[in-house]
Amino acid sequence: MALEEQVLKRIKPGPDEKEKLQEVASELLARVSTIARIKGIEGITPKLVGSAARNTWISGTHDLDVFISFPESVSREELEESGLLIAREVARNGTNVEERYAEHPYLNMHYKSFDVDLVPCFAVKSASEIKSAVDRTPFHNEFIKMSIPGREDDVLMMKQFMKGTGTYGSELRTQGFSGYLTELLIVHYGSFRNLIRNACDWKPGITIDMLEHGTLKHEDPLVVVDPTDPKRNVAAALSLNRFAQFIDACRTYSENPSEEFFFPKAKEPMSDDEIKDMMKSRGSSFIAVSFKTPELVDDILYPQLDKMDHSVRALLEDYDFQVLNSEYYANEHSIVLVELMSSELPSVKKHRGPPVWVNEHARGFKEKYSNSDDLFSMYIEDGFYVADIKRKFTTARELLQERMQTCSLGKHLGKAVSEGFTILENNAILEIKNPDFRSFMRKWEQGK
Amino acid sequence: MALEEQVLKRIKPGPDEKEKLQEVASELLARVSTIARIKGIEGITPKLVGSAARNTWISGTHDLDVFISFPESVSREELEESGLLIAREVARNGTNVEERYAEHPYLNMHYKSFDVDLVPCFAVKSASEIKSAVDRTPFHNEFIKMSIPGREDDVLMMKQFMKGTGTYGSELRTQGFSGYLTELLIVHYGSFRNLIRNACDWKPGITIDMLEHGTLKHEDPLVVVDPTDPKRNVAAALSLNRFAQFIDACRTYSENPSEEFFFPKAKEPMSDDEIKDMMKSRGSSFIAVSFKTPELVDDILYPQLDKMDHSVRALLEDYDFQVLNSEYYANEHSIVLVELMSSELPSVKKHRGPPVWVNEHARGFKEKYSNSDDLFSMYIEDGFYVADIKRKFTTARELLQERMQTCSLGKHLGKAVSEGFTILENNAILEIKNPDFRSFMRKWEQGK
Repeated sequence: MALEEQVLKRIKPGPDEKEKLQEVASELLARVSTIARIKGIEGITPKLVGSAARNTWISGTHDLDVFISFPESVSREELEESGLLIAREVARNGTNVEERYAEHPYLNMHYKSFDVDLVPCFAVKSASEIKSAVDRTPFHNEFIKMSIPGREDDVLMMKQFMKGTGTYGSELRTQGFSGYLTELLIVHYGSFRNLIRNACDWKPGITIDMLEHGTLKHEDPLVVVDPTDPKRNVAAALSLNRFAQFIDACRTYSENPSEEFFFPKAKEPMSDDEIKDMMKSRGSSFIAVSFKTPELVDDILYPQLDKMDHSVRALLEDYDFQVLNSEYYANEHSIVLVELMSSELPSVKKHRGPPVWVNEHARGFKEKYSNSDDLFSMYIEDGFYVADIKRKFTTARELLQERMQTCSLGKHLGKAVSEGFTILENNAILEIKNPDFRSFMRKWEQGK
Repeated sequence: MALEEQVLKRIKPGPDEKEKLQEVASELLARVSTIARIKGIEGITPKLVGSAARNTWISGTHDLDVFISFPESVSREELEESGLLIAREVARNGTNVEERYAEHPYLNMHYKSFDVDLVPCFAVKSASEIKSAVDRTPFHNEFIKMSIPGREDDVLMMKQFMKGTGTYGSELRTQGFSGYLTELLIVHYGSFRNLIRNACDWKPGITIDMLEHGTLKHEDPLVVVDPTDPKRNVAAALSLNRFAQFIDACRTYSENPSEEFFFPKAKEPMSDDEIKDMMKSRGSSFIAVSFKTPELVDDILYPQLDKMDHSVRALLEDYDFQVLNSEYYANEHSIVLVELMSSELPSVKKHRGPPVWVNEHARGFKEKYSNSDDLFSMYIEDGFYVADIKRKFTTARELLQERMQTCSLGKHLGKAVSEGFTILENNAILEIKNPDFRSFMRKWEQGK
């Protein structure tokens, strides 16, 4: 298909790019060995892993994952100490050097326009005996290097398709397909087109176990048993929505393929008039909770935003506000934007009590409400006492203002919110001028 | 208790009233016998039944039930013919004579300031062999006449208590306690006070079977097996709400007895200002459907109004309007009055489609909505397609105006509505000046 050839042309690294990457990678591997020798650290092996090592990187992405593999006999402390010692020496020639933490500490740096990770790991015998998650990577690397040759272009196409349709990336912000998962799917289905064709009929619970060695039952929407570890589902991080979104994208692409699936048009920021028109035509109420985003990595920030989104919805629904949609956004400010049927409720609230025949509860309920100033009327309905009483919060704004901080929020966002937040309603949302936010608002025009 | 003695004084017929009733009853019974003899109708027995015969009528209620009992050997046609012949002759001295129908035809008339029913029936051997519901009455009469002596005052008190608390009367409008049921409860519990005390702890499913001869399982809230017919629940007509209301009244009376339980103050009609204040303070929306009441007996009118009330609620809820309360009222006009959270909804409506992985349905859903002018946005939520579309009816008024006639209404009210109805909203309801309606509206102030 001409379309797919054209896409491939845009994303496949050319000979120069490949050569450059090869050169920088070799240089780094050699430096790791040399430094280890100088420092008298024995038994280590430097390894290039990841898409760069597998020829499955998309042109223009310049990531190099250099693993420094230690013998299993080495202690954890020694690995961390010696590993970082080597990494820091290597990083003398880099810029923007940062020490980061996964299970172990590792170094990240910019080097000759590459984004380089220098990661100490253990050379365990098999992937089922790893001491830390990173120890698995070399096994993945071996499996893909062995099985992918000849299908690298299909991997590139599929990665780009997933990027374009918002399903690529297994980090907590996206909860989509990881690079390794994409490669395994191409190995299993043989080609880009065949994966697309088959995914059209995927249903939650589908299991792919290429080596037929899976030992556990997983509850995830997609199960791809790791060829290097029978206990592990490579697709464990894939959410149901991302799974569904991918199926939908595959079907829509099959029916009507176009370059837009790979390279979607950027969402233009919405103008004031566009937002006003959108709100007016929907006729619903919009309310935004905004606060300064604390400095956090995405893998901490986004799960907490997600939790906050759920808590805010639950709070509103607890107080009878009907939530239509809610979305969150983070930049300098974090914003949870909620669309409500209405941000105002009548003063009267129907409060259902116990059935009349449960004597003890009935007495308590009647006593509590019958002399209350908040009572409009009390009556029996379907055998239950019902008190029509005054509602505590008749506007969503008041409710959020008063109760936002009683919401179950993540540790960091809880702190950020307690330091101050703003509530913006309907047209007041236009005060947010940030173009990223204005693009994000297109979700209400075009779907999520 | 002085209170109860005072109440009794007001409701117990004095010697003059008793004598007068006895006189008129004897006269009627004698006339039935005489006429039968003159007309050559043999084997009939006239019987006084009901509260008049049992000394359990409340002073001022002047009802006489005269049954004309035919031998079982007589055919149904003959019973109806001869029975009405006698009744019509007796009724020559009455006024406002009306032929009415239950299972058989019977006559109703005014006679010497009494409301008299003249009812032909069969003299069956036992209440379990009746040919028509009325044949049962003489058995009830015998049982109560045998078991009630000495407790007539308790029956009077209890009837008045039920009248005052809105639970007396087994007709379909009230669905409360019949006279016979009240008498049986007094027989069973022995006294007014003991019934009150025990009813405080009633629970749905409570069964009273004095003769321990019940043969069927009944699903009603209260089961009182008929001493004259082991298959019958005397309380079958009692609704759950009336049952609950009685329990509640007994408890409240026990805690704080007062004459108001027996003789409640009349509900004053609400003034314009009172209604406006009530609506304003509740903050909800009120909408009334009004139409000319067709000429129907209560036992047909009220069940159909009840059905209409349910249908109107269901229609509103189907279209996302949240109903808080609804009540109906009938006089010259019938009115179903509904209280809504809001009578307006936003234009946008969330329409959930099939899960993404049900391929056939998914295609259909996307095709139907994706090119529709009514679509705001389409997206995937929890694995399901969701289309945010334009709502058909954004006001309850439009919805009722357009769809009222598609509601499932009873035969007679369906016809009445099809001949025309009016919708009144909020302050427009003040156009209804009828004082009965204005009293009925107190339900929103004081409870139902």
